[in-house]
Amino acid sequence: MNMAAGDSPLRNVRIVLVRPIYGGNIGSVCRVMANMGLCDLVTVAPKNIRIEEAETMACWAQDILASRREVPSLEEAVKDCAWALGATARPGLYRQHCRTPREWAPRVLAAASANRVALVFGPEDSGLSNDDLERCTHVARIPSSPEYPSLNLSHAVAVFAYEIYAASGQFEPPAERTPEATGELRERMFDFWRRALLNIGFMDEEKAQHMMLGLRRVFSRGPLTVDDVNILMGVARQTLWCAREMIKCRQRLAALGEDFPPHRIANEETPG
Amino acid sequence: MNMAAGDSPLRNVRIVLVRPIYGGNIGSVCRVMANMGLCDLVTVAPKNIRIEEAETMACWAQDILASRREVPSLEEAVKDCAWALGATARPGLYRQHCRTPREWAPRVLAAASANRVALVFGPEDSGLSNDDLERCTHVARIPSSPEYPSLNLSHAVAVFAYEIYAASGQFEPPAERTPEATGELRERMFDFWRRALLNIGFMDEEKAQHMMLGLRRVFSRGPLTVDDVNILMGVARQTLWCAREMIKCRQRLAALGEDFPPHRIANEETPG
Repeated sequence: MNMAAGDSPLRNVRIVLVRPIYGGNIGSVCRVMANMGLCDLVTVAPKNIRIEEAETMACWAQDILASRREVPSLEEAVKDCAWALGATARPGLYRQHCRTPREWAPRVLAAASANRVALVFGPEDSGLSNDDLERCTHVARIPSSPEYPSLNLSHAVAVFAYEIYAASGQFEPPAERTPEATGELRERMFDFWRRALLNIGFMDEEKAQHMMLGLRRVFSRGPLTVDDVNILMGVARQTLWCAREMIKCRQRLAALGEDFPPHRIANEETPG
Repeated sequence: MNMAAGDSPLRNVRIVLVRPIYGGNIGSVCRVMANMGLCDLVTVAPKNIRIEEAETMACWAQDILASRREVPSLEEAVKDCAWALGATARPGLYRQHCRTPREWAPRVLAAASANRVALVFGPEDSGLSNDDLERCTHVARIPSSPEYPSLNLSHAVAVFAYEIYAASGQFEPPAERTPEATGELRERMFDFWRRALLNIGFMDEEKAQHMMLGLRRVFSRGPLTVDDVNILMGVARQTLWCAREMIKCRQRLAALGEDFPPHRIANEETPG
């Protein structure tokens, strides 16, 4: 299963893990690569990796784990790449020019449209060394708390891959199924609510405008689709029906001389 | 160690894990919460969690793990929250109104400036159920590949927490240590290079303009700071010194009638 779309620049984005220690992290990296449309993984001189831990964490991205390349040096890992963008959380000389993943993402994609590009991550315990950073053409720093800046390796890859994927514009957010309701439809709905609230005795004519303003405010906090308004109108219509039924029943009971609580609901409509 | 800054809205952002299964994920969540300035973790009805796995993955965020609350229901977990923003990768009824974490982040922070806000994540195997989503006031969907949309639990929290932290504006990107070089300083530097390249015989006067254009292009690909230009100027100055020394030595040897390769370097300056 190749996760990247046919001609997407994502196909040219390589993840390079330098001297990784934990198999679980390598597997987690495979999974999030698949989540974010990447498929090219290279590990540099991994040490005694527990492959079964990697397989467990890779879940449905076993193909990325299986097809990863193992090379002895970072130089070898990036020799066919135009960019080698190193991720580091440590401040220091030559790290002053680093940008955030969000700032780099569009430029990484632009470069990846014609060239191979490597995102380079260091070992879990120490991050990229100065020797590693010398092999990088660019440096990035993920925003994180100064009190605990160092992310888990697979989280660092996740944030980076997510930024690249988000910038690629491949994600289609779920579309609204129905368009937003028009003013006319909303007014019809509010009219039903007004009549329903009067008939159930929630408010009287005098308070109606004030109460309806409150209700309009509640229902205008976010966009309302045609579906939303139809649901709300259905509730009000049925409430109105129920109120009218109650009024008819009361009138019938009164005509029969039955004993029931005598208070009258304010502003009841004549049942239709 | 409280990771959140004093009055930051991040203090009001709660992470809620509904029926989590793996201790390692809970620990990973603690770590990335600390990375992103969050500290309030609630787990809903966790099942037989291996706490030692959680402790291993939490690294330096043991305090968040230790201070987490365990409650029996999602209702209980969000009862003091104004927002309960559920993360789901599944499409379906009522999931049409979901936005991405980046779209929600500023609104989450605005809400969190005065109220407690919960970010709600479902179990590893199935995500949030429809019953869970009913308890959520808002729904979010992390951009991911349609071929494998489902992120690891801690990765989902990582992306979300990262977006909230990035939107909070608390992250100060590392500042340039020195300002960018002025045109005057850059011209002085190029003049040294020009003289050095002539004196070492890299180019002659005829080719100089063409070569210098190439060099200017190389050195103008990115911003150059005062420090950068001082380094480049130092290299050229020392090269020029070396070329002049060589020329002096050659002249002295010639005066002594010593035998050495007779070719003359183009355009050599008179040693100063």
